[in-house]
Amino acid sequence: MIHAYATHEPGQPLQPYRYDPGLLDRDEVEISVDYCGICHSDLSMIDNAWGMTQYPLVPGHEVIGQIAAVGQDVKSLAIGDTVGLGWHAGYCATCDSCLSGHHNLCQNATGSIVGHHGGFADRVRAKANSVFVLPDRLDQQSAGPLFCGGITVFNPLIAFDVKPTDRVAVVGVGGLGHLACQFLNAWGCEVTAFTSTPNKKSMLKKLGVHRIIDSTNSEAIEQVAGQFDFILSTVNVKLDWNRYLGALKPTGRLHIVGGVLEPLDLNAFALIMGQRQVSGSPVGPPTNIRMMLDFCALHKIQPVIETFAMQEVNSALDHLRAGKARYRIVLTNK
Amino acid sequence: MIHAYATHEPGQPLQPYRYDPGLLDRDEVEISVDYCGICHSDLSMIDNAWGMTQYPLVPGHEVIGQIAAVGQDVKSLAIGDTVGLGWHAGYCATCDSCLSGHHNLCQNATGSIVGHHGGFADRVRAKANSVFVLPDRLDQQSAGPLFCGGITVFNPLIAFDVKPTDRVAVVGVGGLGHLACQFLNAWGCEVTAFTSTPNKKSMLKKLGVHRIIDSTNSEAIEQVAGQFDFILSTVNVKLDWNRYLGALKPTGRLHIVGGVLEPLDLNAFALIMGQRQVSGSPVGPPTNIRMMLDFCALHKIQPVIETFAMQEVNSALDHLRAGKARYRIVLTNK
Repeated sequence: MIHAYATHEPGQPLQPYRYDPGLLDRDEVEISVDYCGICHSDLSMIDNAWGMTQYPLVPGHEVIGQIAAVGQDVKSLAIGDTVGLGWHAGYCATCDSCLSGHHNLCQNATGSIVGHHGGFADRVRAKANSVFVLPDRLDQQSAGPLFCGGITVFNPLIAFDVKPTDRVAVVGVGGLGHLACQFLNAWGCEVTAFTSTPNKKSMLKKLGVHRIIDSTNSEAIEQVAGQFDFILSTVNVKLDWNRYLGALKPTGRLHIVGGVLEPLDLNAFALIMGQRQVSGSPVGPPTNIRMMLDFCALHKIQPVIETFAMQEVNSALDHLRAGKARYRIVLTNK
Repeated sequence: MIHAYATHEPGQPLQPYRYDPGLLDRDEVEISVDYCGICHSDLSMIDNAWGMTQYPLVPGHEVIGQIAAVGQDVKSLAIGDTVGLGWHAGYCATCDSCLSGHHNLCQNATGSIVGHHGGFADRVRAKANSVFVLPDRLDQQSAGPLFCGGITVFNPLIAFDVKPTDRVAVVGVGGLGHLACQFLNAWGCEVTAFTSTPNKKSMLKKLGVHRIIDSTNSEAIEQVAGQFDFILSTVNVKLDWNRYLGALKPTGRLHIVGGVLEPLDLNAFALIMGQRQVSGSPVGPPTNIRMMLDFCALHKIQPVIETFAMQEVNSALDHLRAGKARYRIVLTNK
């Protein structure tokens, strides 16, 4: 039996929950969970905000642990390996997206917490093709958030060819944004942060931010019109998108990873006249996850975390709901 | 004196208008106008729909003619050359956009009909750097529309790296769309047309269209969900953008060249989950204009036109306003 924490109804606290995972599939592994990050999408799934939650729901998709069992066809992982697991718990490996290296867009992928029990537990299962060995040099306790929050902001740098000479900006410095700032600084870029808490200068500087703009000050945003090659929005609330479009240089890109529910009310002329682009992306494929892990090891990039014991999961969720997480919460079984 | 046709107030008919262009600048040429296409943006400028019209306005920015005079610094053109002139009548050649080959995004460019008198005239002037020699093999009478309508739909194929193996669609088969279909067919692509007049099968087939979808039938659009790598929208009215986003494959692009005034109410999740992109662009830079002209010569691509004598310009404009142009109108001085 796996000992987990689950919620049975939208928005309800988690409760201890035991389930029998059955026989291990030939292409699966079982991971003994040491740490599991909490992502804002765990809250969205607990609340059924996206209408796709299946209850009982065991959240948790930023897992670090040890391989405890391997299916008989698994060659890439061995018992005892220290690994990470993110949003996906298996790719089909046969669709056009998978075959072209875009596993994150696999239509048949298994979501770690979508019709599948996640990492707020002592163990979790996944297909071996979505489980990644953690480089030795990475800190295990803080590494979990790389596997969802981290890859979500790292992937677009690869997918859309962000260059070290680009002038870039990150909108929102939270769980995702604080990693984006670190990545982009190590990328060689001049990094601007648009943040509603611009008074945290010393922390933002530690994260690699060169310039801070108060995102609640629309004049301040207008003053940087035409300056950026790449703006990465990590927030999940409606912004004045056209002001950010206006902050792009000609040929610039506004990239959205924050799941905002309201339509993006974009001005077509702002796109046309500047040959600008707006795009989005979800997490990232295996090759980019491996590149991210190596890049983090090289540049000593790690999530800034607060830890809670696994059994304090409800307090941890309350802390996140209250907007108090700085910057990512990790649950620990150790 | 130059003999032109101008309007003096929004939406009014054009009237004969003479003006003295003064001394020819050192970097300018004067073109004796043989033919001038009519673009929908001429109507928008006549009506001051974009709020930037300066009256009296001489419209016309799809000019074919002969070089009649050259400024003393002009080396690239000579008297008697057959040339074309499009939306821009001069680039600054010193801004970052020009220096990086994106002259179409030059902030200091002169618009042929923006604070400048255009090609509904016997002569027109422009900086030599925005005037292009027409390849011998191109038909002169029909070539004018390539310089605005044509480059507007050719440029994104280069700028956003459309591939012959891409499945592409053109939304709207009018002045721009009928050229886009021809370009994309010669590009090697499977071409789908979304059109509100799907009964014109034989003509659409001649334009290189492989598949026709009735754009007024929302079910028909839903039936092609996830099929296209690239959708080019040439219309200037609000569409159900999210249905077209849904018709894109993962990593697909919706590119907009039609100047629609209402905001694009895009669903962020449709962008994010499929790693999709939305972009826009205006006309194209000199290198792409030259490539387009060579491509047209090689593939025998030419605008399908109706001609009116220059002095019948008001009848021609009425014909366009009535939505009757098939597919582009050319005024002729010959």
